[in-house]
Amino acid sequence: MKAYKDMTREELQAEKKALDAQFEEVKAKKLKLDMSRGKPSIQQLELSNEMMDVLNSDSYFLDETGTDCRNYGILAGIPEAKRLMGAMSEVDPDNMIIYGTSSLNIMFDTVARCYTHGVCGSTPWGKLDKVKFLCPVPGYDRHFRVTEFFGIEMINIPMTPEGPDMDLVEKYVNNDAAVKGIWCVPKYSNPQGYSYSDETVRRFANLKPAAEDFRIFWDNAYSIHHLYDEDNQDVILELLSECEKAGNPDLVYKFISTSKVTFPGSGLAALAASKRNLEDILKYMTAQTIGHDKLNQLRHVRFFGNFANMQEHMKKHAEILRPKFEAVLETLERELGGLEIAEWTKPRGGYFISFDSLEGCAKAIVAKCDEAGVKMTPAGATYPYGKDPQDSNIRIAPSYPTLAELKKAAEVFVLSVKLVSVEKYLAG
Amino acid sequence: MKAYKDMTREELQAEKKALDAQFEEVKAKKLKLDMSRGKPSIQQLELSNEMMDVLNSDSYFLDETGTDCRNYGILAGIPEAKRLMGAMSEVDPDNMIIYGTSSLNIMFDTVARCYTHGVCGSTPWGKLDKVKFLCPVPGYDRHFRVTEFFGIEMINIPMTPEGPDMDLVEKYVNNDAAVKGIWCVPKYSNPQGYSYSDETVRRFANLKPAAEDFRIFWDNAYSIHHLYDEDNQDVILELLSECEKAGNPDLVYKFISTSKVTFPGSGLAALAASKRNLEDILKYMTAQTIGHDKLNQLRHVRFFGNFANMQEHMKKHAEILRPKFEAVLETLERELGGLEIAEWTKPRGGYFISFDSLEGCAKAIVAKCDEAGVKMTPAGATYPYGKDPQDSNIRIAPSYPTLAELKKAAEVFVLSVKLVSVEKYLAG
Repeated sequence: MKAYKDMTREELQAEKKALDAQFEEVKAKKLKLDMSRGKPSIQQLELSNEMMDVLNSDSYFLDETGTDCRNYGILAGIPEAKRLMGAMSEVDPDNMIIYGTSSLNIMFDTVARCYTHGVCGSTPWGKLDKVKFLCPVPGYDRHFRVTEFFGIEMINIPMTPEGPDMDLVEKYVNNDAAVKGIWCVPKYSNPQGYSYSDETVRRFANLKPAAEDFRIFWDNAYSIHHLYDEDNQDVILELLSECEKAGNPDLVYKFISTSKVTFPGSGLAALAASKRNLEDILKYMTAQTIGHDKLNQLRHVRFFGNFANMQEHMKKHAEILRPKFEAVLETLERELGGLEIAEWTKPRGGYFISFDSLEGCAKAIVAKCDEAGVKMTPAGATYPYGKDPQDSNIRIAPSYPTLAELKKAAEVFVLSVKLVSVEKYLAG
Repeated sequence: MKAYKDMTREELQAEKKALDAQFEEVKAKKLKLDMSRGKPSIQQLELSNEMMDVLNSDSYFLDETGTDCRNYGILAGIPEAKRLMGAMSEVDPDNMIIYGTSSLNIMFDTVARCYTHGVCGSTPWGKLDKVKFLCPVPGYDRHFRVTEFFGIEMINIPMTPEGPDMDLVEKYVNNDAAVKGIWCVPKYSNPQGYSYSDETVRRFANLKPAAEDFRIFWDNAYSIHHLYDEDNQDVILELLSECEKAGNPDLVYKFISTSKVTFPGSGLAALAASKRNLEDILKYMTAQTIGHDKLNQLRHVRFFGNFANMQEHMKKHAEILRPKFEAVLETLERELGGLEIAEWTKPRGGYFISFDSLEGCAKAIVAKCDEAGVKMTPAGATYPYGKDPQDSNIRIAPSYPTLAELKKAAEVFVLSVKLVSVEKYLAG
């Protein structure tokens, strides 16, 4: 294919005519497809259906220490759930707190706690004139929503395939005491699918924050969400132990959940941190609740038995997800390769592909898709305040549609990209 | 029995000698009993065991609108859960939000939201110099803990068998704009088991708060938790509709849960309020979470089918609880009747009996019980800041021990009351 930038006006006009005709055909099909959110498909949900059989009326409802999981009590989670989620989080069970069903909710709660009660005795963030967070971009819209909601100023930090630009991170964190946090998805990042390099993780562990109440918000959402077998999986260093080694044990809050392992909304969510951080958090939790759902903890623990089985379970997810990612990537390569109008990532795990169009085209592409019945994540959503300065990033979520639907949706997407791009060249 | 106050010094000394001997005997038994918390007994938990059979791997997991309860989504709860909890809360399903598993957590969350984001656009409470809450006393320790945790000043309001002293409530609420809330357990109150009279509820609905962001925190924790049949149940007016009638629709947040209907920690918790309040809350929730556990909602809805069945289910709880309450009351009457050293309530529902000793004796009685192996709620816990100005109130929780254990515990309790009282008279 000839790159659009090298086409003559006549060639561009011919291309546009052909694309317009194709687009009208597609529109006539009145499709209703969705590549907007990182939702597991029905086929994936069914992998965990048997978790619903684990507890029944004849079950033994006590945890391993004899606590009745049907009754009040146990603020931080039953020991066997701490072990399971600790293994998933690669930390000691004593560094875990098991919450309810949503890690996003733990992150919100963590920001809210810092806002009202500070961090290990520091001034509550809500009492300060200015609080700032660093936001690697593109990133996860719901992270940005939380910090925006608490009036926290967000600073864009460019992402690279190795992780956030660490020169910039160090410059801000080590010099500006108003910088209190950074949002990170360190493995198979949302939306790129990048995994932080060892050097990046070590530089995080060795930060020398100007603010004593600075914390790294480490959302390890896709820690075991590989698409390929062991030889082709990303591995990252474990940050809590790196922080300990660096003499900074309190620097990080780690978040994790089984939302995309068992059932979104009905999984287990957990936090990992240093003992000092956990004590600080437990003081808050003592006023906040009597305890989280221990029956759901028991259900998860008994369904998996151990972490090795959870990893085996993830292979079944991979078998469903891998062909979907590959179908989208194949379509992108086949239809857009050589046109020089876009770039995209090729993740080995996680839930997304990050797509960059020509500058100023993302909103128009998403609108075009919508016109043809394909719903995409709103352009801009991957940036704080919904503002992508280049208007070029689009997050593609291949998980939810069936493979057949996804192939159709991907065709609509590339067609929209080509149309908007050719129009840009014709207009410019 | 002769009242202690009418005894001569010699009679008191003889009584003390006899009681001391009894106490030594009891201590020798090395009992380990607990009347401290309102926990359902194992027998009660087993009433809901079959709820664990409701969902299994072959279940139909869609709610009535076709939403897959295994996946993300539905912020405010599935429609059938809103209907069930709406019936329990005596309001329209459209006035409901279903949360996670703990109503205490909703109350904490509500205070936290008012603190960080205000009420329907008002100044966040955290930005104000002074925020006050009214606290009917004796009351629920965990309510007081929440407001204390947010630095809210708590003002004691005496309880009567008709509800809080409404003259005082009106005086504070209608004149002091720093008064932002009041904690209420309107039915079978914690710890007295009192139910608010119709006049009390109407006076609440007709408050004219000085503060536009004043709200009534209406914790209807024991709405269907009767001990007796229909002829001997308490009924209270429904506050949300009374507020509407009074032209004050936004005055109340109602809280409810099935913690003591199904499983504490794994039940459903919900909030009821006006549409305007719900919209305000939903804005917050949109940043806070993607949605709560819909499988647990489905499990509850399918287990009960409808509210009438939930009420039937409560009769089974009553059959277990009633003999326990009656055993404690019988012991109190038999051993303390006529001594004029104590008063106590005789509830027709709820989870507690409120006991008042002679002034200055409560802490000593609880300590005596502890010495003999019977754990009681700490004296003072029923007051803000843990400070009972009379040091006389003790909350008795008869639910958790078996009937046989409870009878033993009640004997230890009355013995401790007598001993401490006789010592008071001898010292005075």
